[in-house]
Amino acid sequence: MFSISKRSEVEPFHAMDVLAEATKRRAGGHPVISMAVGQPSHPAPHAALEAARTALAEGRIGYTDALGTARLKHALAWHYRDRHGLEIDPVRIAITTGSSAAFNLAFLSLFDAGDAVAIARPGYPAYRNILGALGLDVVEVPVTSETHFTLTPESLEAIQKEKGVKLKGVLLASPANPTGTVTGREGLKALAAYCDANDIAFISDEIYHGLTFAGEETSALELTDEAIVINSFSKYYCMTGWRIGWMVLPERLVRPIERVAQSLYISPPELSQIAATAALGASEELDRVKASYATNRDLLLDRLPKIGLAPASPMDGAFYAYVDVSRFTNDSMDFARRMLAEINVAATPGLDFDPVEGPRTLRMSYAGSRAEIAEAVERIGDWLK
Amino acid sequence: MFSISKRSEVEPFHAMDVLAEATKRRAGGHPVISMAVGQPSHPAPHAALEAARTALAEGRIGYTDALGTARLKHALAWHYRDRHGLEIDPVRIAITTGSSAAFNLAFLSLFDAGDAVAIARPGYPAYRNILGALGLDVVEVPVTSETHFTLTPESLEAIQKEKGVKLKGVLLASPANPTGTVTGREGLKALAAYCDANDIAFISDEIYHGLTFAGEETSALELTDEAIVINSFSKYYCMTGWRIGWMVLPERLVRPIERVAQSLYISPPELSQIAATAALGASEELDRVKASYATNRDLLLDRLPKIGLAPASPMDGAFYAYVDVSRFTNDSMDFARRMLAEINVAATPGLDFDPVEGPRTLRMSYAGSRAEIAEAVERIGDWLK
Repeated sequence: MFSISKRSEVEPFHAMDVLAEATKRRAGGHPVISMAVGQPSHPAPHAALEAARTALAEGRIGYTDALGTARLKHALAWHYRDRHGLEIDPVRIAITTGSSAAFNLAFLSLFDAGDAVAIARPGYPAYRNILGALGLDVVEVPVTSETHFTLTPESLEAIQKEKGVKLKGVLLASPANPTGTVTGREGLKALAAYCDANDIAFISDEIYHGLTFAGEETSALELTDEAIVINSFSKYYCMTGWRIGWMVLPERLVRPIERVAQSLYISPPELSQIAATAALGASEELDRVKASYATNRDLLLDRLPKIGLAPASPMDGAFYAYVDVSRFTNDSMDFARRMLAEINVAATPGLDFDPVEGPRTLRMSYAGSRAEIAEAVERIGDWLK
Repeated sequence: MFSISKRSEVEPFHAMDVLAEATKRRAGGHPVISMAVGQPSHPAPHAALEAARTALAEGRIGYTDALGTARLKHALAWHYRDRHGLEIDPVRIAITTGSSAAFNLAFLSLFDAGDAVAIARPGYPAYRNILGALGLDVVEVPVTSETHFTLTPESLEAIQKEKGVKLKGVLLASPANPTGTVTGREGLKALAAYCDANDIAFISDEIYHGLTFAGEETSALELTDEAIVINSFSKYYCMTGWRIGWMVLPERLVRPIERVAQSLYISPPELSQIAATAALGASEELDRVKASYATNRDLLLDRLPKIGLAPASPMDGAFYAYVDVSRFTNDSMDFARRMLAEINVAATPGLDFDPVEGPRTLRMSYAGSRAEIAEAVERIGDWLK
């Protein structure tokens, strides 16, 4: 009988397990409200749906170049000109099957087994799990209110001393999941400079760009050509299930990424590339969606503390409330399970994001409709009484 | 300045490079005929397109469970009952982002760095490249007319002695790319039994099922519950660009695969899952497409030897002619490049499939239209004179 690999012993992505359980309960007729996964309830923008419909009528959906269509790359170059005043050569852009593929490609192309890569804790669990499955040394840097919930050159210096490692990579998300931290221009600049001076690859996860409610939103591309920038159409553009994202790369990294992508992904889904190209022109519709998140955020900022769930971090960007549940439990996994079973509200246990402090936290996505969020908060408030 | 990893030094997938060059030439107005990638010219079946259109009209395309929708899993279970008389529990089925994701997930979940995995040479290049990028020891077993172009227990015994390794995995495609080899029931049975007796994971790549023109098409599932079966909607179902495939797994492998998939892929594209579910009921349309490949195959079997390009392998299944170009060149890469530049016909240099003998072979896909195939053969014949 064959055996199963050690490297597949990664933690489950609990949010996906909660999603699976929520799907099952909903199919069983329960009135489930899901705040578990970071997924807009708004569909893809009208223009994207229209472009997809036209493509379906026109014929074959086939392989594209491994790093995506020229049309989408050019549209993204235009996007950086329009939004950031930057001239990005389209050859530096790689279209990927969601940001998931972008992370995998970046990690494979930048790091060999055993290399040390720093991430913030709490942080997006797939970072840790993918890095682990690829045999990398995941260096978790605890971020708290003292460091404004972000990484700094000082915290990177300190962790290397503490662990006795030399970092090969640093990965930072801004806005961050689950904390909502927005790292400002000066903070990003200091990090990029530190990485550059120490031959460390700096990966900037900008998947929540477009969803900043407080503070300044800066792309690492404004500061350096050496950053590996990762982004996606899943969040601001409301296209999760389309699985489409992109990277902007230092030019010398393009061919290595392309070689690995050719074998590992063949190409990103073509219909999604066509729809995404159209979505880039839909900012009017998407900014209205963003405004609805702002309303949800205001509601949560007002209501959550009143029902005993104080936010544990800033909520400046992205669409999550990361709350402290320690008044009620020291096992947020069990708490989330009961909340789903008893009042049909799905949220993600903090263990996903923080193996240390996570048993005392819970993440709630506020990318749903206002009615759903209000109803969920009411159910939770009554339940906690 | 950060460095690039050693493991990203995989060979390019030359077929994808040829595709990129062909796309560029076509955009420049050249009358390119592409036989380079294994891609049906027929669009997705009517029912699949219709299902996608309906889903677009109905609203949000979102994340699904990490291993796919229950609906598609049940439809695939029905497919195995209908086509193979097998009862497969839907919980053993995992939907993946193309067979590409299935290979990556299988390799990560079954093997740790340094483990030895056998594949046939010539064979699909992404096997070698993904295995390599994941730090595995790729054991290439040369297959020739003497072994009927397939793996056997004897050849696996011999290679282990020769290389001094103990295999952890064996991967076989039937029908095979690029050789067209169909491994019969008895051959598959012997391999599965050998793997079982030696604690070797047996991965059966069945992506070209439905496209067998000579010989018997057997699923490894008919022989054992221990095989890891990989399949896709890209070939028989004409859905390359939709990036949707599946695996059938021994039950104890489902959760490890799910855990890795949650972080590495989040979920397969939802619209593609909806379309694929409908495609499973479209065999009448798809069998007509298959009949057109049979006509193309007859044409090539007749014409290729006459223009000096004798098939180097059986052409019993899949949709490739793998031909011997040694009369004209000992550098098939240069040959392919010139063929594209001079007569606008794209084919894939054998180096993709066989690092040893590949400089003397070329792969031509016959999944295009009859008119295109006939025109391509005529251009090549004139060019070679």
